[in-house]
Amino acid sequence: MRSAETNRPRLRIRSVNLDTGRENVVVLSRQSKALRAEIFRGFSRVELRCDSKAMLATLLITDDDTLVGPDEIGLAEPALRRFAEPVGSSVTVTPATPPESLEAVRSKIRGQALDARQIAAIVQDLTHYRYSDMEIVAFLIGSASFMTSDELIALTGAMAGAGTKLKWADPIVVDKHCIGGIPGNRTSMVVVPIVAAHGLPIPKSSSRAITSPAGTADTMEVLARVNVGAEEMKAIVAACNGCLVWGGHVNLSPADDILISVERPLGVDTREQMVASIMSKKIAAGSTHLLIDIPVGPSTKIVNSAEAMRLRKLFEFVGDRFGIAVEVITTDGRQPIGNGIGPILEAQDVMAVLANEPAAPTDLREKSLRLAAHLLEYDPRLRGGAGYARARDLLESGAALRQMHKIIDAQGPSNCRTQLGELTHDVLADRDGVVSGIDCLQMNRLARTAGAPLEKGAGIRLFKKIGDRVEAGEPLYRIYTFGSSERDLAVTNSRAATGYAIGNLPLLPGETRP
Amino acid sequence: MRSAETNRPRLRIRSVNLDTGRENVVVLSRQSKALRAEIFRGFSRVELRCDSKAMLATLLITDDDTLVGPDEIGLAEPALRRFAEPVGSSVTVTPATPPESLEAVRSKIRGQALDARQIAAIVQDLTHYRYSDMEIVAFLIGSASFMTSDELIALTGAMAGAGTKLKWADPIVVDKHCIGGIPGNRTSMVVVPIVAAHGLPIPKSSSRAITSPAGTADTMEVLARVNVGAEEMKAIVAACNGCLVWGGHVNLSPADDILISVERPLGVDTREQMVASIMSKKIAAGSTHLLIDIPVGPSTKIVNSAEAMRLRKLFEFVGDRFGIAVEVITTDGRQPIGNGIGPILEAQDVMAVLANEPAAPTDLREKSLRLAAHLLEYDPRLRGGAGYARARDLLESGAALRQMHKIIDAQGPSNCRTQLGELTHDVLADRDGVVSGIDCLQMNRLARTAGAPLEKGAGIRLFKKIGDRVEAGEPLYRIYTFGSSERDLAVTNSRAATGYAIGNLPLLPGETRP
Repeated sequence: MRSAETNRPRLRIRSVNLDTGRENVVVLSRQSKALRAEIFRGFSRVELRCDSKAMLATLLITDDDTLVGPDEIGLAEPALRRFAEPVGSSVTVTPATPPESLEAVRSKIRGQALDARQIAAIVQDLTHYRYSDMEIVAFLIGSASFMTSDELIALTGAMAGAGTKLKWADPIVVDKHCIGGIPGNRTSMVVVPIVAAHGLPIPKSSSRAITSPAGTADTMEVLARVNVGAEEMKAIVAACNGCLVWGGHVNLSPADDILISVERPLGVDTREQMVASIMSKKIAAGSTHLLIDIPVGPSTKIVNSAEAMRLRKLFEFVGDRFGIAVEVITTDGRQPIGNGIGPILEAQDVMAVLANEPAAPTDLREKSLRLAAHLLEYDPRLRGGAGYARARDLLESGAALRQMHKIIDAQGPSNCRTQLGELTHDVLADRDGVVSGIDCLQMNRLARTAGAPLEKGAGIRLFKKIGDRVEAGEPLYRIYTFGSSERDLAVTNSRAATGYAIGNLPLLPGETRP
Repeated sequence: MRSAETNRPRLRIRSVNLDTGRENVVVLSRQSKALRAEIFRGFSRVELRCDSKAMLATLLITDDDTLVGPDEIGLAEPALRRFAEPVGSSVTVTPATPPESLEAVRSKIRGQALDARQIAAIVQDLTHYRYSDMEIVAFLIGSASFMTSDELIALTGAMAGAGTKLKWADPIVVDKHCIGGIPGNRTSMVVVPIVAAHGLPIPKSSSRAITSPAGTADTMEVLARVNVGAEEMKAIVAACNGCLVWGGHVNLSPADDILISVERPLGVDTREQMVASIMSKKIAAGSTHLLIDIPVGPSTKIVNSAEAMRLRKLFEFVGDRFGIAVEVITTDGRQPIGNGIGPILEAQDVMAVLANEPAAPTDLREKSLRLAAHLLEYDPRLRGGAGYARARDLLESGAALRQMHKIIDAQGPSNCRTQLGELTHDVLADRDGVVSGIDCLQMNRLARTAGAPLEKGAGIRLFKKIGDRVEAGEPLYRIYTFGSSERDLAVTNSRAATGYAIGNLPLLPGETRP
């Protein structure tokens, strides 16, 4: 076999300037010397080989010799980066045999339960980019319909083992996680400095936004560098008890990062995958005590308390198996937390709370104190029930703010732009009344269309929250953008749906509705 | 809204010479005037608009101005063809709102049954290329795990209604279908002329190969044109009682064509989808009586008779609901039918059977006669049990061959190459013994690697079938190719797995194994 392989025509690597997202994509000439492109096309996936290095990729075909010639193979981003061979190197290209673990995915689709070995093989192939986007979806949806407890444990363990593992000397390492969906919900950036100021280690790593206008990592990046590796993260936590870094850079659960990047745009979320996703990262991060915040509201991921309860049981089950003390609480998820949506606007809210500014959003402050209270009570030296008072003391005394500055200094400056979008548009109430609902999904969409999170200063500032009185013509919120295209599109979309429901004013005693 | 839309920056359409398969793909510059590419990227799907015309597409990003400039949008194939606006036309591009029916797909994934309206909306969006490849997979796998009877009926009906509908004046219109997977299984090309020669209308449309080395349409194309539209098909059937055309051109179930093109490469097949797929096409084709052939063997789609029985029930259930008389038979699917694998080699087998040549493959002849016998008995004028003798008479008298020539003349000549691949390689037995098994999947793979079906003359000719004695060094089969790359790769793959199992010779009386 070896000799036949080495006799095969080799193609020269060429760069094709296309960003294809997560998937490895290569371009072949229809007149390719390696094999006729149409014959390849029947396989659609190809394998590149160069010495002992191999990579699977999805195939596109071109007739344009200036793009890719007959003796060349074009590698788009990220294939070129991942294959890591210089342009001009020669490779062999053959129709790809699908990864063996795909057979297990097919079994799963046919309704069979997988064993730990099969799940580990799937996670390995995912981690090494051997699945096409369509194959990833097949695995995700195939395991969405049902997953046994054993499968959940195996998936969590395999994902936790596929990346970096952090180890801490401390007996208690606390962490928190919020099931997303609520705009502006940046409690971590208030909770971490409070808990760290108390002295409990809280090495927090967070995600960047995938389909939302800001993840905690995007917002923290306004204040400090978040692309921090595992070793540096340890040094920061040793110095400050806490950190607020981007988890993707720490690489705690690379398979999960890939799964999430597929399931979010599809809008598909299942309980089991959510639990495996979160718990795999916390296990890899070496957490001993974990607080999970499940906001419940009409436009959150979890829409009622029965759902939340089922999810709680799953978290507890997995936590027990992996020796992590898990506490799950539900919170009010009916509307955005704080006033800002978008990295800079949210960072302003956070710093206002930490600085005890009178205008700081009280909902962000109160929710953060409540979460911090839970975490502080993991400290055996603290009396039961004393967590809230301790958290408030640390916040009001300025200790939390000082701790935040210490963390920011330790992580170092980021080099992102810090000004707010200068093109603004106010969305106005179309009637008198009381705000009766805010559609979190629509506010996320609008902030995203405005340019967040890529543009740190793009987003939305809310002037009204649920229960507030408004008059017709009064501004409900302001959209911040940098370009007129973004502004026009956000304005168009806000006209189609403001995201605000305005109800009648409550009747005064003796009054009747006209 | 309209004015905001028309004020938006417009981009000029440009052609990007990339063939992206089934999916609409467009390329945007990272410096795009329409919206910053990274902001788009968060949405990944975009909507192009030009007057009232709209198209959804998946987005790739480039930094190369020579490929796509900031005021341009690059349309790859098939997006350019489907959007059908000339290069240079101006369009607006916005982040796409996913098709509404995707919400029903999510419900399905969460385990809910869909109603007929929801399923019809999904099929409409599929048919109009509004789903990305990943969204198609989500639907396929999401409905693979379970589908209610009502859902199956709704899906079949919606798919049958989405394309061309054929109507026939005759009270009986017969058809046959084989659940694929068996190489060389070209019975339709023998059955259609026999049945047509008898006088029963059999307007047969067939598929082209997607992952196999030949579909009936690919093989028929060696003898005649198969890209025949609905009207022309009717004229041919009026003149000849039968035809053998490509179903894709008739466009009987366009949504199904899309689903199949996704599920085949993934290797995912579910009973319900298979039934909806086949029945939707037969309903649209106006068949009244349908014979379904389910080959059962270790490497066929259906691996045992219990599976085949469940499938039979489903076919009967759907047939009853749509007023089609369905008969399901199981056949021997342990090995390829006939000797040829690949369009020309299979066409040679077919014509040898029709011409009653002594060397014609007896398995193809016998299986075709058996199937034709079932179909002929749908004729009320024929006595029960007389079908086989009538089929044999029509074959042996040369009536079937004459009918085939009539059909070929009516469909007209095809312009494909008709010579066999001149680069051949014989795969030899490595020991004395008896052929005990032939792996259909591996033979398909080898014939495909050799260049079939794109190269009509590429493929495999089998010299030995199950039960045949072989001596070490004797050829088992010959691989036909046109290029040395294809030959080398097929040879390499045949060395890794010949596809043949050779067992011990049966013992003679009194003999013992050494």
